[in-house]
Order: sequence, then structure tokens, then C-alpha cells
Amino acid sequence: MVQKYGGTSVGDADRIRAVAEHVARTRRDGHEVVVVVSAMGKTTDDLIRLAGEVSSTPSPREYDMLVSAGERVTAPLLCMALADFGVSAASFTGSQAGIITTTEHSRAKIIEVKGDRIREALAQGKVPVVAGFQGVSTDRDVTTLGRGGSDTTAVALAAALGASICEIYTDVTGVFSADPRIVPTARRLPKVSFDEMLEIAATGGRVLMLRSVEFARRHRVTLHVRSSFTWEPGTIVTEEDSTMEQAVVTAVTHDATEAKVTVSGVPDRPGVAARLFRALADRAINVDMIVQNISSHGTTDISFTLPKLDLATAVEVCNGLQDELGASGVTSDDGIARVSLIGAGMKTHPGVTATMFETLGADGINIEMISTSTIRISCVVRAEDVERAVRSLHSAFELE
Amino acid sequence: MVQKYGGTSVGDADRIRAVAEHVARTRRDGHEVVVVVSAMGKTTDDLIRLAGEVSSTPSPREYDMLVSAGERVTAPLLCMALADFGVSAASFTGSQAGIITTTEHSRAKIIEVKGDRIREALAQGKVPVVAGFQGVSTDRDVTTLGRGGSDTTAVALAAALGASICEIYTDVTGVFSADPRIVPTARRLPKVSFDEMLEIAATGGRVLMLRSVEFARRHRVTLHVRSSFTWEPGTIVTEEDSTMEQAVVTAVTHDATEAKVTVSGVPDRPGVAARLFRALADRAINVDMIVQNISSHGTTDISFTLPKLDLATAVEVCNGLQDELGASGVTSDDGIARVSLIGAGMKTHPGVTATMFETLGADGINIEMISTSTIRISCVVRAEDVERAVRSLHSAFELE
Repeated sequence: MVQKYGGTSVGDADRIRAVAEHVARTRRDGHEVVVVVSAMGKTTDDLIRLAGEVSSTPSPREYDMLVSAGERVTAPLLCMALADFGVSAASFTGSQAGIITTTEHSRAKIIEVKGDRIREALAQGKVPVVAGFQGVSTDRDVTTLGRGGSDTTAVALAAALGASICEIYTDVTGVFSADPRIVPTARRLPKVSFDEMLEIAATGGRVLMLRSVEFARRHRVTLHVRSSFTWEPGTIVTEEDSTMEQAVVTAVTHDATEAKVTVSGVPDRPGVAARLFRALADRAINVDMIVQNISSHGTTDISFTLPKLDLATAVEVCNGLQDELGASGVTSDDGIARVSLIGAGMKTHPGVTATMFETLGADGINIEMISTSTIRISCVVRAEDVERAVRSLHSAFELE
Repeated sequence: MVQKYGGTSVGDADRIRAVAEHVARTRRDGHEVVVVVSAMGKTTDDLIRLAGEVSSTPSPREYDMLVSAGERVTAPLLCMALADFGVSAASFTGSQAGIITTTEHSRAKIIEVKGDRIREALAQGKVPVVAGFQGVSTDRDVTTLGRGGSDTTAVALAAALGASICEIYTDVTGVFSADPRIVPTARRLPKVSFDEMLEIAATGGRVLMLRSVEFARRHRVTLHVRSSFTWEPGTIVTEEDSTMEQAVVTAVTHDATEAKVTVSGVPDRPGVAARLFRALADRAINVDMIVQNISSHGTTDISFTLPKLDLATAVEVCNGLQDELGASGVTSDDGIARVSLIGAGMKTHPGVTATMFETLGADGINIEMISTSTIRISCVVRAEDVERAVRSLHSAFELE
């Protein structure tokens, strides 16, 4: 199996020793283990701060060389601790582990996992400990995999080595039916499908990054999200189990990191939306929800949500296009939040949307935008209403 | 040219920017530059402390992976800072720079400097910035080069690239006629020969490590030791200049890091000393000075100095051999220090030794051991007398 330990799980020497003890226990139970580690605690943030102190616009190549250093420290430290627990181990950088990536720095994609040295180490009875988050590009430069990159490293190694399971150790005990800080009665979900996990990750669940879940689904790697503080069983993320009765709603998620832009009075003719969203894509803006009003008098309004960080750029793009599009105005709103219901059983239960709207309506919460997929319904509401919305929905769908 | 910047020279973001500005200036002056950097300030000490916290006996392979991380952080930071000064740069790990070493971790020796990527970067008009102190072994593992390893990296690169000079930037302005903290009138030496520098390094001069000087002499790489705080010209270390009149005495050095062991009443016959020093060598003890008394009544006393750290082991070895050697006793003394005179002109000026002894005698300083080379005289004295001895000798030989 592959075990991945996040930053808080290896935050100091004591934690590294606790992790080593658990790896030793796993080995005693007869499992072959490959470990992937993140940087200790806030190490990567410290390196990013240093980069900001020496340069206003760090080169992407050098930025990756720098921020990959943290994982490269944790890996040998864990190997040393493992040796003290009687486990022979060997650390590997992303490059040494054969994590071959594209050349796009800071968000490189894994092309291939060679893993020769990992297999050699396993054959010698050693526990390979791989520095997560990093690889080596086809240009032989150090690259990093973007946010959640260590999870991606772990999943990619699990896929390449044919591991039965990839355990993701973190500081929470699993994936919950809602954020426990907002809903104290939220339950840990023992099992969720890849599709549900993708929607949870995409709509505000902070436990796993979208990309590593996509990778796991594509390569059919079962994930087990669990705590390195309590070591209790957590949440299994795996393929949908057709023999099981599916819960209609599995989880309520929320996300307050987005803003909304509305371009109003746009002529309702082909090509207008395409022109707008191509221009936004050209500036690398990740648009999330898009809603277009019903046309009236030959014009319509287009609203979309996007990360708050990109708001200024998006408004600039929209203002620049206003005349060309023939729009009457551009407005923005960073006081929004999104609440979502996720559940694989939703596909076959059409009443969920109605119940959701009724619940929010009974609470006097106004819905500004709606977006749905087969297993998700998202509503944009005022930011100040979102925690109340999560609690009401969690209760209405009896997720306690 | 190759420029190497030590830990204090790159100790924080401001210092890294100051170094970048100097490299940019050097480039504007028309020089092609390769930079070698140490870890920032106390980074490596912090990593060593962490290793001690997770494990009682860190594996050498993992130790090297860990302690090489600091240099790998400085290199990209300096590249980012260089970019801000309009200089295109690219960082390289020891491995990427092609520093191929033996497999002895923590004290690996450089076998070969491939340097292909360094040459490529230079050809592209870039400043290559190489992480010092590290290489990659013939087993493809990360190795480190031991104390002063970044200097060795710089000299090895200078030799491989045929650089005209290797500048070693540090926090002092050069090599002095004595330690300025003890002798306020000590002079900076504008030029010393490799032989003198070797003796200075071996007898307590802390500016350059012995090994990098040996490497420089063997490959005829001229060194320039200078300050990254004042940027003024420092000390040139180069081949002996036969056209110049040589100073009789160039510098007075001292070293209080050694202890003395005496094995007394040893039968004066062949093979006894060999047996003793082979046994010490087998325990990897670096014996420095050795003095054997004139034999009396068929027995003699053998005294030697060695690093204080090795004293306990050495006494254990000597006690274990006492019966076999037929010695009457083993004593040790960690209250000694050594004072040395160094000067290439000494070869042709036989009076130096006499003046040295007279000076120490006039000060009431007892000489416990004497050792000489063609360009050095060392005396072991009481530790509490050594600073006084340095001042008296510095004055007697008119080094002010």
C-alpha cells in the first residue's frame, strides 16, 4: 500500500517519530509500504515568503527548485526515525523516484512514473519514502505539481505500483457530511464514491484536492482518508458500489472563496458568450458556475462565479469587451458564497431540488444562482447566510 | 570566474540581494561567472539538530539527503534575486551540476565534475548557481563533501571549467598575519602561496579548509579570499612567486582544539610506534603532531596530539595496547594549545626557530612539544599561554 502523510502529520520531530511507529506497525502486519511525505508544517509557506523577500517576480523554474525543498527534508528525517524503529528505509526525491512531468512549472502534470528505484528498494525489503509534490520535467528541471501535489504523487505511485490502497493521512478523521466547525452533528462518512468525492472536493470540501481524486478515479486507486493523530479508520473513497442502497444526499458543502460577475444587457445572439469566456480563459481565469438569464427584449444577462483572487482581472476583461459585446454594464459582487448538496442517489430522486429550495426559503435565504449536475445541486447565496444554510440543509436531509 | 558565497554571505534575503547585485556588477565588468552557494546562516545546523531529534544514529545516506537541503534552497533564491537585477540565472543541485563523488557519505570525494549543464547554461548567457557541499555518488545517491565542502565544490568547478580565478566570499576581509581578535595589529596578507595557506589552514587558520586548498593547489586554481560585506580586495592564494623576495615569516596561527596523549616507558625497538599508530588509524583517529623522546635506558616516551573529540577513544586504544607494547603508563592532557609560525622564506632563514624559542622563553612560556616542516614551526604550549604567545611572536617577527 501507499501511505501519504500531510504537513501537520509530520509537523515536528515527535510527529515524525509517531508516523515512523505507525509505518513500522503496518509492516509488522505484513503489508509492503511505500510512503509519500509533505513538507513539515509551514515549511513551504516559509520558503514562499523568502522568495517574496528576494524577488518581486520569481522565475517559475527557480520557484519550483525552492519550494520542493521542504519535502526533501521530511523524507530523510522519516527514514532516520524508521531506522530507530527497526525498519530499513530509503528516501527518494521526486526525480529519483522517477516522477516524470511536463515542463509547466508550479502546476506540472505527471507524464510517467518510472519508479525503478522504488521497486529496487522494495525488493531489498526497504520502505521507500518519497518526497511528495515534486517531479522532474522532460527538460531535467525540478517541477512541482501544484496544490495538493503530494496527494497526486501518492496516487500516481499507487497506480504505477499496482498498490491495493492509497492511505491519505491528515489532521482530520475523514470526509464529513458537512464541515464539523459549522455543523457539530456532522457525521464521518465511512465510504463515498469517486463521483461524490469529486463533487465534494469541487464545492468546498478541503480534505482532498480535486485533481488527486480525478487521478485516483481514472486509475481506479481506492483512497482511505484518515487521521495520523487518532489512527482510527476514516473514509474510503472508491468506485460506486451498485449493490448498495445509495443515500439520496451524502454531504452538504460550502465555499466562500468565490465572487460573482454579471455582464448585463448583452444582445442574445450566437457567439457572444463564446467571445466573453474565451477572453477570460486567455487570462487563465477559472470560471466556475455560469448562469444566463432568460432573454427579454433581445438582450440577456450573463453571470458567472470565479475565485476572488481573479476578480479584478475578470472585471478588467469584461469592461474591455463591453463595447464590442454591446453590453449595458458590468457589475461584480464578492459577498457571495455557495452551498451544495451532493449525493449519488440524487440521480433517481427528483424531489431533492424542491426540498433544498423550500428549506432555504423557509429560512428566508435568497438564492442568487443555481447550478446542478447529476449528483449535485449548488446555490449561490449571500456570504452571511451560508453557515445558516449549511446547518438547515444538513438537518433537513437528516444527515446527523 | 567562479564565485563562492559562504553561509553568512547569504544569511538572509537582504544579503542574498546584496550578493546578486555584486554578481550583476561582475557580469557588467565583462566576466563570465559561475556561482557556488552555501546554506543560509545556521540552516544546516538546524537540519542536524532535527536529525538528532528523530534518531539516535541517523543513517549516513539519509543524513546526506537531509543536510544537503540548505544549499538547494539558497541557489534558487539567488537566481530569483539575480533576475531582479536583470541577470538571467539557473540553479543546479550538485547532482544536476554533475559533481560525481565516491559513495562515502558525509565525507565523499569528488571523482569527476561533468558540468555539461553548467556549460550549456553559460553558452545560453546564463549565470549558473550551483548548490555547494553536495554531489551525487556513483550509486546515484546524494552525498556531501564534509566541512568546507562548498569551497571544494567551487574549486572543483573552477578546475573543470578552466576558470582563471575562484573567489571565496566570506565574512572576513582575507587571511591575516594572526587572528585579529587576539592581535589587533594583525595585517591582511595581500598574497600567500598555496604551501603557506596549507600550513595556515592546518594549524588553526579558520578562513579556508585544508582540503579545498589542497584541491586548489593540485589543480592550480588561484583563490581570492575576500569579504562579501565590504567587497574590498582580500587575499590571493596562488603559486609561489619566485621573482619576489619572500617574507621570512608570513603568519602566526594558533589552535586550541587538540589534546595530547603520552605513552611512556615504551621499549625502544622497531615496530612499537607502528603498532600504536596503526591501531589509532583503525579507529579513524586523525593524529596530528608526534614526538618521540630520546631513548634512555632502552625505553622512550611517545607523545601525540589529536582532536579533543577523539581523546576518549585514543586513550582507550592506548590503554588496551599498554601490556602488548610493554609501556609503563598512558597519560592525557586536554589543556594544551599549539602556536605556529608559517613562512615560505623560512626555508632559507635558519634563525627563525631560535628567535621563536627565545621569544617564548622570554615570556616564561614553556614549550611542551615541537614540530617543524620546511615552512612551519609549531610549538605545543599550555592553553592559557597561547594568546600571549601569538601576540609576542607577531610582534617579534614584525608582522604588524
